[in-house]
This record gives sequence, C-alpha cells and structure tokens, in this order.
Amino acid sequence: MNKKISWPGATQLAPVPVVLIGCSDGSRRNLCTVAWVGTVCSTPPMVSISLRKERFSHGMISGSREFTVNIPPVFLAAEVDYCGVVSGREYDKFAVCKLTPGEGETVKSPIVMECPLNLECKVRNILELGSHDLFLAEITAVRVDEHLIGPKGRLELENANLLAYAHGHYHRLGEAIGHFGFSVRRKPGSPVRR
Amino acid sequence: MNKKISWPGATQLAPVPVVLIGCSDGSRRNLCTVAWVGTVCSTPPMVSISLRKERFSHGMISGSREFTVNIPPVFLAAEVDYCGVVSGREYDKFAVCKLTPGEGETVKSPIVMECPLNLECKVRNILELGSHDLFLAEITAVRVDEHLIGPKGRLELENANLLAYAHGHYHRLGEAIGHFGFSVRRKPGSPVRR
Repeated sequence: MNKKISWPGATQLAPVPVVLIGCSDGSRRNLCTVAWVGTVCSTPPMVSISLRKERFSHGMISGSREFTVNIPPVFLAAEVDYCGVVSGREYDKFAVCKLTPGEGETVKSPIVMECPLNLECKVRNILELGSHDLFLAEITAVRVDEHLIGPKGRLELENANLLAYAHGHYHRLGEAIGHFGFSVRRKPGSPVRR
Repeated sequence: MNKKISWPGATQLAPVPVVLIGCSDGSRRNLCTVAWVGTVCSTPPMVSISLRKERFSHGMISGSREFTVNIPPVFLAAEVDYCGVVSGREYDKFAVCKLTPGEGETVKSPIVMECPLNLECKVRNILELGSHDLFLAEITAVRVDEHLIGPKGRLELENANLLAYAHGHYHRLGEAIGHFGFSVRRKPGSPVRR
C-alpha cells in the first residue's frame, strides 16, 4: 500500500474549474479569473465563488450583487491567466485581451462571447470565511454557443474544448473514460470494474 | 462571433473535481462520490461539499461534523462511479470496491489509501440551500502518497493521474498548456499570447 506523508499546503483539491468572472458597477466593467468556484445546489441552481476582499471585482460584485461565470476554452488559456494576474483597477481586461462583452439576459454584468458557456448569477448570500469571502449565487440564465447543440438537441459540451486547472497548471481535458452510471449499468451483480 | 442561445439546464459548470467523501458515525463507515466540491478559503484552508439530505452520508457528516476528501486517480473511475450510484445504507462500499480505509490524523473518518491525496476536514457551518445542504469545512490535515514528493521536496501532483468530471463523463486530465502567470512572465508589455 502507498505510504502516506503529511503535507503542509492545504488547498490541494484538483483538478478544479478555472473561469472568467464578469462584473460591472454600472460605469466600469471587469473580468477576473477564479478557480475557487463550484456548483452548490440543483434546486434552485446555484454556484459559489470565493474572492479576496482586496480584489477589484469583490467591491463590484458586493455592490451589484450579480456576476457572470464564463467557462473558457483551451485557446483562451493565456487570457484566463492574464485576467488572474492583473488588476482591473489598472486595465480594461476586455480591451487588453480583445474579448467581446455580450449582454446578459437577466443581469447587467457582461458575458464573454468567446466563452462557449456562460452562467448569469445573482448573489443570494455573502459569507466571510477569512482570507476569502464566499459569494453564493443563483444561476438565473445559461447561455451556450449554438454550434454546441447537436442534431437531437443535446448539449455537446465535449466539443467545447474546456480548460481545467490543477496545482498551478492549465490543462486540456483528456480522454473520456466512462459516463455517470457506467460502473453498474452493464453487469448487475458485478458492479465494480477497473 | 458565436451565436448564443439560452439553455434550460443550469448546473453546467465544467470540468469539476470528482472525489470520494469518507465518513463514519462511530460504528459504520461510508464513502460517497461528490462532484460539487470546491476550495472556498485559503486562511483558514477550507473546502465545501454539497449533499442532498437524503444521502446516507448527509446524516453521518451532520452528526460527526467531519469527513475526508479523497482525490481519486483515473484507475479508480469505476469505483468512483459506483460510490456515486449505490447507497451506503445497503453496502459497505469500502468492502465492495476493495478500497483500504486508512486512519485520519485529525479526524475519525476514514481516508481512502488508494487515493493519492486526502484532505481531512472538520465542519464549521452547514447551510440549507434548497435541494442540497452546503457543508463548509476547515482542512485540518493533508495526506499525500510519498512517491509524489520529488527529489527537491516539491509535490508532483502531475504524476497523480487525477480524474476530472465534465457533463456526465469522467475524463483523464490532458496536456498542460501553461502555469499560473505564464501569460505575463516572459514578455512584459505584450502580456496576452494565444
């Protein structure tokens, strides 16, 4: 059996999503990159994002109580990285990155048109956890690129070429190994296969 | 520019982690698979998991107020799937999946020895969101396989062969495209490259 050791770094969950958060204070818009994002509820559909109070977007989102989650494809890896390193106080990141702001259907925050999947979100609760505040938000609309809808009306997200983040590195998503339920659907009575 | 359409399904964030949650009520142990898990704070280090009240693990974790997050490698995809489909009320999933429970350093919940990375967590807050309750927990210890520590003491998580989950499918993690900061480190003044 593998020998275990204790490791001092604690926030080691991986891989995680890495997304562009769109926000606005009415006069200025901003983008910031967040890897601490997750789905937290189905009904109502909700996501959470964690932000340090010092981030420019923290103030915008606390004020507007809304944001967009823009899920980037692999070809935007450099833009995603840049939006996580540079502050929107100094740069209009949409302009620097040549990204196209789109109008939300249910929020005033911009969506990123180059991202194949966009979630529009309204903040329901903000919790102070320590270094980060947790924004719990309801998903009020989902926008997808039309070309991702297959002939039978299925969302073909496997064609979106999404980006993952693990331990400080951006990754392509690799080969699919199985679908939800694959371990039990084929051979009842012998459910676990390697 | 891509044409956008509205999509009715809302919980579309992807890729997301997919982990085995270990828990115990003192006499019985259980494992359950969760994809709605995320890092939520650095200081203190915290994760969140979302669970439906109906799940067997929900009661155990509400009672013990602790759990482990076990991050699986690709070769455990079928076991991960199985632990998300079958209830621990009926099966001892450690036994059925031939997984080895290990002792926590800071919690009584079992860790999964076959997973290269294990987070020990103590619940600080439980929020009812709707279909799911959100468990906010502090990471009190991190355990890693010794063979993942490189010659210079770096955690080489890229050798852990971790699993990702996207839109109903388990995936390998693909090629690394860049590291955090890669968009600005090489060429100041021309920060965004594709």
